[in-house]
Amino acid sequence: MEKLKRYAKKSDYTYTLGSFPTFELLEHYPQYLKQVLYSAQTKEEIVDKLRFLCGRQGIPLSCSDRVLERIREKEACLVAGVLQKYPDRMEAEADHVVLVHPKDMGNLGTIIRTCAGFGIHNLALIEPCADVFHPKTLRASMGALFCVHVECFSSFAEYQSTAGRSHDCYPFMLAGSISLQELKREEGAPVSLIFGNESSGLDDSFLQVGQPVCIRHGDEIDSLNLSMAAGIALYEFTRTSFSRQSDRGAGQPDRIRQDG
Amino acid sequence: MEKLKRYAKKSDYTYTLGSFPTFELLEHYPQYLKQVLYSAQTKEEIVDKLRFLCGRQGIPLSCSDRVLERIREKEACLVAGVLQKYPDRMEAEADHVVLVHPKDMGNLGTIIRTCAGFGIHNLALIEPCADVFHPKTLRASMGALFCVHVECFSSFAEYQSTAGRSHDCYPFMLAGSISLQELKREEGAPVSLIFGNESSGLDDSFLQVGQPVCIRHGDEIDSLNLSMAAGIALYEFTRTSFSRQSDRGAGQPDRIRQDG
Repeated sequence: MEKLKRYAKKSDYTYTLGSFPTFELLEHYPQYLKQVLYSAQTKEEIVDKLRFLCGRQGIPLSCSDRVLERIREKEACLVAGVLQKYPDRMEAEADHVVLVHPKDMGNLGTIIRTCAGFGIHNLALIEPCADVFHPKTLRASMGALFCVHVECFSSFAEYQSTAGRSHDCYPFMLAGSISLQELKREEGAPVSLIFGNESSGLDDSFLQVGQPVCIRHGDEIDSLNLSMAAGIALYEFTRTSFSRQSDRGAGQPDRIRQDG
Repeated sequence: MEKLKRYAKKSDYTYTLGSFPTFELLEHYPQYLKQVLYSAQTKEEIVDKLRFLCGRQGIPLSCSDRVLERIREKEACLVAGVLQKYPDRMEAEADHVVLVHPKDMGNLGTIIRTCAGFGIHNLALIEPCADVFHPKTLRASMGALFCVHVECFSSFAEYQSTAGRSHDCYPFMLAGSISLQELKREEGAPVSLIFGNESSGLDDSFLQVGQPVCIRHGDEIDSLNLSMAAGIALYEFTRTSFSRQSDRGAGQPDRIRQDG
């Protein structure tokens, strides 16, 4: 394998930095892991667990502080996974979230995690946008990236004419004519929940797209932050799937966790 | 005034680092601002605006890269406000949010911002907890700290026997016997929405407190993050206040923003 360098958007691999996301990948998605690295300072029990899991999956494991130092981001890092990037396609018949030009990798990762939590497994990113494979995005998603299909599009029009062509669109914006608090969602077609970026939101052209929605709040803040707005919308749109009264189908959780 | 040092929890002042939160304070809460600093690199139009606003309020303004370098956190900082810490008390008859041992200043700031957005103006922190006056908390709250009464308590029992004694309590936890998605809130007493910390949530003793609630989600994630869980709960509990059908009282927003 080639010499590992600090992550760059153009490289064909990325890193899980830290033992938590690396163990998540080892347990759930070993097929994407090319190699695992650990430091001479890593605790013996962690190394033993890595040896066991990597050995079982046939994944190369090595101790190299020199390489970890080279590939880490700001924080020190005692364990890292080397992850092959993979192409992905959205499912055309499922519900979608669409992020138009998201800039912040932390927000992107948090939204991916919340999508996975509320059972929305398809995310469209309209370019330019934050890098979904950046180690910071992976860290914020807590490994949930691997439960969600993420696809990039060069424009919203391209999304709308391909993956999103049969969807009821709900752009979330200041000027939305109905509030989420009052919205009665029509059953039928799959939905696209569409959000603008952190600084400027969606432009007025989205007033012509489907049913614009605002999340109403008081005027003591300018806006909710992006991941909060997306999380609240996801909660509201999936409410009936997570009510005890609803049919508990195959996709329904057996184990419910709410640790705050 | 004494020589300014890097922020410490025990000092009686703190800092707004960056021009955005400093302008927020200058415009909305000048009474707490002791002094404003800017760098020789600050753009002329920003300095002009600072001169105008500080001059109008009688707030000392000075250019000192040396002081900015000493007080800044990780990021470079071209403008800073010096903010007097102030004592605060919760309103006993209002709705409350209670955070038990929150650790992360970013989460704390985001929750304060979301509380302000949904009109909950009282927050109890159970010690040990993240420092509400730390510049990182202030930054994450985007200035919303100054719309919310924040009070610290040495234990949940102390909160419950004082500020929270007349409240209907809703601890959010894994083992909550009802889901937020199905909850019918009883009208009447003010509510306390209670959340555990980032790593361990609330312990089982909270099962004996009021009506434990879980936010149901699928098992692809272990939990929602703390600020997301609190934001969703705030949205749900304030839903009727932000519906168009409801009476639009004095506390109701005139201006609704949803920039994503």
